[in-house]
Amino acid sequence: MSKLQVGVIGASGYGGAELVRLLLNHPDVEVCAISSHQYTGQPISDLYPGFQNCTDLVFIEQDQVIEKSDLIFVALPSGLSEPIAKACIEQGKKIIDLGADFRLDSSEEYEKWYGKPFGDIELHKMSVYGQCELHHDQIKDAQIIGNPGCYPTSIELGCYPAIHSGWVDTDHIILDSKSGTTGSGKKLTENTHFPRTNEAFAPYKVGCHRHTPEIEMMLSEMAGQPVKVTFVPHLLPINRGIVSTIYLPLKADVDLETIHQTYKKTYQNDPFVRVLDLGKVADLKFVTYSNYCDISLHMDTHTHTLIVVSCIDNMIKGAAGQAIQNMNIMYDFELMSGLKTVAPSF
Amino acid sequence: MSKLQVGVIGASGYGGAELVRLLLNHPDVEVCAISSHQYTGQPISDLYPGFQNCTDLVFIEQDQVIEKSDLIFVALPSGLSEPIAKACIEQGKKIIDLGADFRLDSSEEYEKWYGKPFGDIELHKMSVYGQCELHHDQIKDAQIIGNPGCYPTSIELGCYPAIHSGWVDTDHIILDSKSGTTGSGKKLTENTHFPRTNEAFAPYKVGCHRHTPEIEMMLSEMAGQPVKVTFVPHLLPINRGIVSTIYLPLKADVDLETIHQTYKKTYQNDPFVRVLDLGKVADLKFVTYSNYCDISLHMDTHTHTLIVVSCIDNMIKGAAGQAIQNMNIMYDFELMSGLKTVAPSF
Amino acid sequence: MSKLQVGVIGASGYGGAELVRLLLNHPDVEVCAISSHQYTGQPISDLYPGFQNCTDLVFIEQDQVIEKSDLIFVALPSGLSEPIAKACIEQGKKIIDLGADFRLDSSEEYEKWYGKPFGDIELHKMSVYGQCELHHDQIKDAQIIGNPGCYPTSIELGCYPAIHSGWVDTDHIILDSKSGTTGSGKKLTENTHFPRTNEAFAPYKVGCHRHTPEIEMMLSEMAGQPVKVTFVPHLLPINRGIVSTIYLPLKADVDLETIHQTYKKTYQNDPFVRVLDLGKVADLKFVTYSNYCDISLHMDTHTHTLIVVSCIDNMIKGAAGQAIQNMNIMYDFELMSGLKTVAPSF
Amino acid sequence: MSKLQVGVIGASGYGGAELVRLLLNHPDVEVCAISSHQYTGQPISDLYPGFQNCTDLVFIEQDQVIEKSDLIFVALPSGLSEPIAKACIEQGKKIIDLGADFRLDSSEEYEKWYGKPFGDIELHKMSVYGQCELHHDQIKDAQIIGNPGCYPTSIELGCYPAIHSGWVDTDHIILDSKSGTTGSGKKLTENTHFPRTNEAFAPYKVGCHRHTPEIEMMLSEMAGQPVKVTFVPHLLPINRGIVSTIYLPLKADVDLETIHQTYKKTYQNDPFVRVLDLGKVADLKFVTYSNYCDISLHMDTHTHTLIVVSCIDNMIKGAAGQAIQNMNIMYDFELMSGLKTVAPSF
Repeated sequence: MSKLQVGVIGASGYGGAELVRLLLNHPDVEVCAISSHQYTGQPISDLYPGFQNCTDLVFIEQDQVIEKSDLIFVALPSGLSEPIAKACIEQGKKIIDLGADFRLDSSEEYEKWYGKPFGDIELHKMSVYGQCELHHDQIKDAQIIGNPGCYPTSIELGCYPAIHSGWVDTDHIILDSKSGTTGSGKKLTENTHFPRTNEAFAPYKVGCHRHTPEIEMMLSEMAGQPVKVTFVPHLLPINRGIVSTIYLPLKADVDLETIHQTYKKTYQNDPFVRVLDLGKVADLKFVTYSNYCDISLHMDTHTHTLIVVSCIDNMIKGAAGQAIQNMNIMYDFELMSGLKTVAPSF
Repeated sequence: MSKLQVGVIGASGYGGAELVRLLLNHPDVEVCAISSHQYTGQPISDLYPGFQNCTDLVFIEQDQVIEKSDLIFVALPSGLSEPIAKACIEQGKKIIDLGADFRLDSSEEYEKWYGKPFGDIELHKMSVYGQCELHHDQIKDAQIIGNPGCYPTSIELGCYPAIHSGWVDTDHIILDSKSGTTGSGKKLTENTHFPRTNEAFAPYKVGCHRHTPEIEMMLSEMAGQPVKVTFVPHLLPINRGIVSTIYLPLKADVDLETIHQTYKKTYQNDPFVRVLDLGKVADLKFVTYSNYCDISLHMDTHTHTLIVVSCIDNMIKGAAGQAIQNMNIMYDFELMSGLKTVAPSF
Repeated sequence: MSKLQVGVIGASGYGGAELVRLLLNHPDVEVCAISSHQYTGQPISDLYPGFQNCTDLVFIEQDQVIEKSDLIFVALPSGLSEPIAKACIEQGKKIIDLGADFRLDSSEEYEKWYGKPFGDIELHKMSVYGQCELHHDQIKDAQIIGNPGCYPTSIELGCYPAIHSGWVDTDHIILDSKSGTTGSGKKLTENTHFPRTNEAFAPYKVGCHRHTPEIEMMLSEMAGQPVKVTFVPHLLPINRGIVSTIYLPLKADVDLETIHQTYKKTYQNDPFVRVLDLGKVADLKFVTYSNYCDISLHMDTHTHTLIVVSCIDNMIKGAAGQAIQNMNIMYDFELMSGLKTVAPSF
Repeated sequence: MSKLQVGVIGASGYGGAELVRLLLNHPDVEVCAISSHQYTGQPISDLYPGFQNCTDLVFIEQDQVIEKSDLIFVALPSGLSEPIAKACIEQGKKIIDLGADFRLDSSEEYEKWYGKPFGDIELHKMSVYGQCELHHDQIKDAQIIGNPGCYPTSIELGCYPAIHSGWVDTDHIILDSKSGTTGSGKKLTENTHFPRTNEAFAPYKVGCHRHTPEIEMMLSEMAGQPVKVTFVPHLLPINRGIVSTIYLPLKADVDLETIHQTYKKTYQNDPFVRVLDLGKVADLKFVTYSNYCDISLHMDTHTHTLIVVSCIDNMIKGAAGQAIQNMNIMYDFELMSGLKTVAPSF
């Protein structure tokens, strides 16, 4: 059987390069083409020497990538994916967009946070928000996937069972997230200058990060009513990983054991979500370089608040890995295909 | 004029050693004696080679330290300071305890978190909680100081103006703190083994850290009524510093400018507390190795929640530096004496 | 076809655990048994939570591991492998020892550095030093492999073409190596206590590290005459990787282009050794988490010294990965089987 | 007595800003003016928030700095200091240049490495290479100081007693140095982008770094004959500090104890140079944030090579601290004035 031909548009950025890295060892696909606006004509191994001897792929034009591929991954800055999606659909191809363009349902929200409304409403109607554990069935038949953001992935998986059960006072949800520096990407910035960033720590975009509407969209879906959250991201002086500490004040009289059982049951068929035993604490050490999401549950009996700790690798489960998981669902590959790396614990 | 003779009991631990390091360059005092149970007879420079050529101090017996000193700093594990305080008072000496033994007002709370009640109530009645900015006047005349914990210091300074003003819904306060590894001290532990800790991040003692009663004691004092909080500390893979992200839901209709002016005014005579301009974000990069506490203020208009970011060096403003500041107040030295180091910004 | 049954003795240490991690995704083998003296009866995922959901393996007794396996990997401290090798041979099984017991040819040298002579000379005569690129043919038929040390691996691959060509003045070879902290293993030590190690750097065992005789044995083999070296290892405040900066004063009148071509040709059939283009510098960023060894070549025309930079992941090419590569050669599996991970470049 | 008025030209870079940071707590001087080409008109605390509440200094024009100051520190890129030195001398002022312009004796060497010859030979004749421990007497009366480079400082102090004693075979000196990232300065570069640099390690400018001629100039002076060296710098993924591992093959039959005594005696009146006891290893942990240089001595009896490990803080003893030490000598201030900070050992 010939392998699925996949292409990556925007493969010179961190998200795209990580996709290529993982896809090269995926048994069911062949990476047939990659593009980069800035580096057209250069081998990817020039930019990322880790690829030497592993692939001869050279960045080509975006249009050629679409032409050569059955499935196209897009890893571009927001605002550029609509025309690509249109071209894919017209040519009978599928697309998984790692950017923000197909994540939100509402053109109004999109405009508020990204500065322009949806251009082609029909494309957005066709698209599915690719939260693999929560939207599995819609993903199966989708042609356009909006791959979730990194922070939202950690938060949504951490919140779902509790909010869906109706236990949470949804007026006072606090989401305190911490991310490694790869989340900022390849571009040089003051905030990722080594002597500035190393041995430092701070929040950024306090209460006004673009992932807020995506999180609220999904938490509202879970709650069956509009939910507003306070979300504060922080920059960790490490390479990879997101830890979200999620504060869910409980309105229901429910104990931690019950909550724990509900989480276990919810995710019993989701191999990438690991609900830890009570008493253990999720740590990103044990998820980085893998597609796992580790969740630990804690009760502040004092204030009757459920505290959920949710950890992922921002580049894998929070981006490239989840995109591949979406592909596995869409093409009926083994769910874990290409994503079996065990996280190094040291 | 002869200098104040000061001694440090427990100078082989991180807190005690940092005290010695800072006191050696304090113009108004002389470090006359230091003790360590484990290392008696050894020079401190054997243990911490940074002291070579800087001091010849050798660890001696605890009793001798009390005898030789006018003021005694104690940096021991909790539960050991009462008899030392008693001896100091009997000999007409003053004591600043960096441990937890004289921080709490309530013997019940102390017993709940530390496993035994107060032994000598009179000592506790004499003692003052040494929050330098908030308890300045009581500190002046104190003989026994309970030096605040590191997390509480960052949180109390960050909360005071807002809570004291009565603006905060004190039922839903969330305190999400992150600390560097020096907070764990000199003792080897799994959680500070380099390959385990580096490139990792996680919370610990979720909702049950011993600093909780100290924080609640002070926030209740500010509010004029009992306050309960949800407090979650995290371990940062760096050496020094605490960032507390403080979520204060507002019940009052107050805007960020008003809040900011109140913070500025509250701390206008406190040189070590820097309330940043609106729009800036406090970052521990700019406080480590100094005695400053940087505070930035942010409004989530969305949920009407005040977010306060408060940063300190856990070993200095959160321990040894604040202890020296207490001494400066008690002995009417210049407030910044010995504490003028400007934080390196790289 | 049934898969090769492999076991790991000493799987609770870093070397053994890394082996299990990699072997779990090796298509040609099944990890049937693992042992740990200290943790018998516990699942490996208790010790290293990254294994959760990935394997149910539980530590059992060492003897049972030998019994159940066709091939036994041993990852124990030095001095314990002889009796295991004996048992394996008696039961017709093969063994790859990651420790030092089967690396040296000379019982005298072994005794000098490890404190006791060889116990069973015959076992040592049977054993092969498993430098995969240099001893490929002996490895094919070996029953006992002494898997090379981490520092020696980086140095031997970096030195071979130049020394073998007879160009080097072998009286003045300087080997300055730097290793990440995983090289020290799982045991807590002062030198791996986070606040002590982080933002620090220093050499250790200066001129007297146990890997010296192993390096000299192999460099002498390459040179066809006894070679002595000055070897200084340093501890890098990172998790993984070794960089060896190798100073080879040249006695021959040979230019860098010629040397480069010789290196390229020597390793043209060795996919894991990447000789970089002239002008590029090997960096461990591009080898960590992979089995590659990157080598860059530089000439100090000034002193006519060839400088070779050789980088590996100490846990993979320097330990577990090379052990698997040895297995692949012994069992005629695809050479890269189980070792295809592309190094993340960020 | 009025304090010495000092100015800093180029105070927005790391070297200049570190100077200002240290000078603010120097008891004998007042920082009266600072300049920055790029940030004229802005307070230094905008650029480096650690300065908030500590100083109101605002960047002004370079000419004004010269006018207002008695002594001018210059911290500019190479090639810009000659006209400033000229202006200073004409106005009867002294200058300490932290850049490379006044370090080399030879216009030919300067041109070879920096691309242009000396412009005004007379200025260079007047200038003194400010190696504080080795050139103390010339510094006393100097008007122009060329402050040593960071790598050369660590190497020269480490080499002097052995080379000056005539023990070293000066044909095979290898200098393997490792520096933290602040050495690269404030400018954003690929090599200091956090996800690229963190958990990475590599040499750079292998055998061709600009500090080579400066090192050779000084080692030749020590040896009394021309010396050539092989010098390779590496980038450590930390903020501060240089460790130089110095390989000095011995031609003389001298033992380590004798060498150690000679080092101790050589530096007995130099408080900032600490020759460690035999058996100890210098570690940059114990010098960072201080002006100390720690030196440890080791013998590879095997190859009769003296190995010297020399550690400094690149920003302090390797730049701003040594500049202040030069000032202290020139103005007969206490040698350690303003430089008494004890290195934190954690």
